[in-house]
Amino acid sequence: MGVDAVALVPGPNFTRAIGRSFMSHERPFLVVIPADGPAAALVPNLELASWDLVGFDGAVFDWRDQDGYAAAFADLLGHLGISSLAVEGQVMRVFVHHALKAAQPDLTIIEGEREISALRMIKTDEDIAALQSAIDISERALQRTLDSITLGQTEKQIEQTLIKMLFDEGADDLSFHPIVAAGDGSAQPHAHARHDYAVKAGDALLIDFGARKDGFVADITRTVFLDHVTDEGRAVYDTVLQANLAALAVTRAGVTAHDIDDAATQVLEASDFADRIRTKTGHGLGRDVHEAPYIVRGNDMPLPAGTVYTNEPGLYEIGNFGVRIEDDVLITEDGYRTLTHFPKDLMVISC
Amino acid sequence: MGVDAVALVPGPNFTRAIGRSFMSHERPFLVVIPADGPAAALVPNLELASWDLVGFDGAVFDWRDQDGYAAAFADLLGHLGISSLAVEGQVMRVFVHHALKAAQPDLTIIEGEREISALRMIKTDEDIAALQSAIDISERALQRTLDSITLGQTEKQIEQTLIKMLFDEGADDLSFHPIVAAGDGSAQPHAHARHDYAVKAGDALLIDFGARKDGFVADITRTVFLDHVTDEGRAVYDTVLQANLAALAVTRAGVTAHDIDDAATQVLEASDFADRIRTKTGHGLGRDVHEAPYIVRGNDMPLPAGTVYTNEPGLYEIGNFGVRIEDDVLITEDGYRTLTHFPKDLMVISC
Repeated sequence: MGVDAVALVPGPNFTRAIGRSFMSHERPFLVVIPADGPAAALVPNLELASWDLVGFDGAVFDWRDQDGYAAAFADLLGHLGISSLAVEGQVMRVFVHHALKAAQPDLTIIEGEREISALRMIKTDEDIAALQSAIDISERALQRTLDSITLGQTEKQIEQTLIKMLFDEGADDLSFHPIVAAGDGSAQPHAHARHDYAVKAGDALLIDFGARKDGFVADITRTVFLDHVTDEGRAVYDTVLQANLAALAVTRAGVTAHDIDDAATQVLEASDFADRIRTKTGHGLGRDVHEAPYIVRGNDMPLPAGTVYTNEPGLYEIGNFGVRIEDDVLITEDGYRTLTHFPKDLMVISC
Repeated sequence: MGVDAVALVPGPNFTRAIGRSFMSHERPFLVVIPADGPAAALVPNLELASWDLVGFDGAVFDWRDQDGYAAAFADLLGHLGISSLAVEGQVMRVFVHHALKAAQPDLTIIEGEREISALRMIKTDEDIAALQSAIDISERALQRTLDSITLGQTEKQIEQTLIKMLFDEGADDLSFHPIVAAGDGSAQPHAHARHDYAVKAGDALLIDFGARKDGFVADITRTVFLDHVTDEGRAVYDTVLQANLAALAVTRAGVTAHDIDDAATQVLEASDFADRIRTKTGHGLGRDVHEAPYIVRGNDMPLPAGTVYTNEPGLYEIGNFGVRIEDDVLITEDGYRTLTHFPKDLMVISC
């Protein structure tokens, strides 16, 4: 990357490199890894007991709440003697950037998110086992949730059922706050479950959710119909399913992110519902819910075996309804393996 | 603040100002509010259906995944014609900072976290009702969790019970992933629950957790002892409790954050356990778990009535154990009201 060092702040890259996850909140906390020589860390004093468990052998500059962190930044950068630094732009917050520049105004800080996060794009067998475990938990929770739905329940009630089932099935945490959206709510890709919307016969019900397990996250969407489905609902669903399958059909080691998105998006564009396209096809999945590679036209990154991505084409008409079908897909040398096994044929729930 | 405009990105200030919460992930999303004239927004295209619900009457520059966001930043800044911008340094990530600078290299970006977040420091009656609701849920879940503990359970099992109880009692979400730490684990202020540590007689058990409800978060810590307590445990607990009470004794409208921390910390420093001090006394609480005001020596901000802060002195000895007692405290004109009601006398659990 042509820089003297890379900085990591608490988040997925940090956890993978350090072997332990940390909170950050208002306290700066970073590890700097130079191209040459040992790493150094800036650690909030209250984390030192946890930090001892890491077995870090570089210099540590700790700071106490009462003293502030300016001196620790100056000491860290004085110790390192670097002139350029790549950072994770999607994770590091601006106050850390400003603290670095305050301590060394001539330090060049470049955006290195893509290169840094790419280091964890290829999943190990252990990573994949954790992902599979998170997905299996999620699918069991989804089945139990769907089995429990009755007409007249609110979106919020269904969401709360899903959350309880996720923990009951063994989730360490939620991957993210679930999306449970029926009727017109399903047309918002990132809807909030409503306290005041009772699901009714004929509704599309979109559920986007996942469990976190052993540091890895599932991210699954299914859209079902309650009681019955209209012809329009069926046609939209079939289009999205064909797009999902088209993405899979081109998936194998060496395919570009562009090509996967293009395969799915071409199906959507060729349909009667092209004006309902609102999103790219997907994103990488692993320790973070959204990570590289982004499955979007123009991203010409060839994807190696071991990459896991979400295949989640969708169609959304504001005021009407939306459909999304999302699988978690592992790229292999000669094709792919879907880690999600929940059926994706059109499902009409009797409730 | 001497700037032309303020920028908000999804997070607590954004939610309060806009009236709706949004996810952000890899997609930049911001609202810019100039000192004069209408606000403008940069919105990911897939969020437009949700954005319509906001009733925003300024200019909107949306961008699609397929096209990227560089043009939208250029259009937004061209439209605004500003030369300086204050941002939330604790919330905005570096990639947004870089996108702003790429679109307008001469734009001066200053850290405005303190001033911007201060706007929500004084809680309304509605805010306090939501906080109280989150706290009540949390306390019921804690009681049920403590009632369920048996010796030999792992920290992880106790954590999972607590999480289930929180949702069962009506939490919308977790405030943060709970800390459940026994024995030497309790000496790490931000410990992770261990799968391989079974709680045993004589352990200190530190539980730091909270429910999120209606957009507001509880943050409560209790440390209990299992089966029996040693003389050292009792002495440390009493010291922390006295520090907690000393902070309360000086709390009233107009007190500075410095004075509250100083009152608690003086008690700790005068004890036999001064070398176990690792943290400041607390932080503001509201839509965010950690927010202004930070209750730390040197912070001479006078705190107005309506401020809610965490009063959480603690003592931690690495390899031995830690004690923290944390209440959520509302500052009133003539004193304070603790929103937490869970007993804080030394508690020995028979289990």
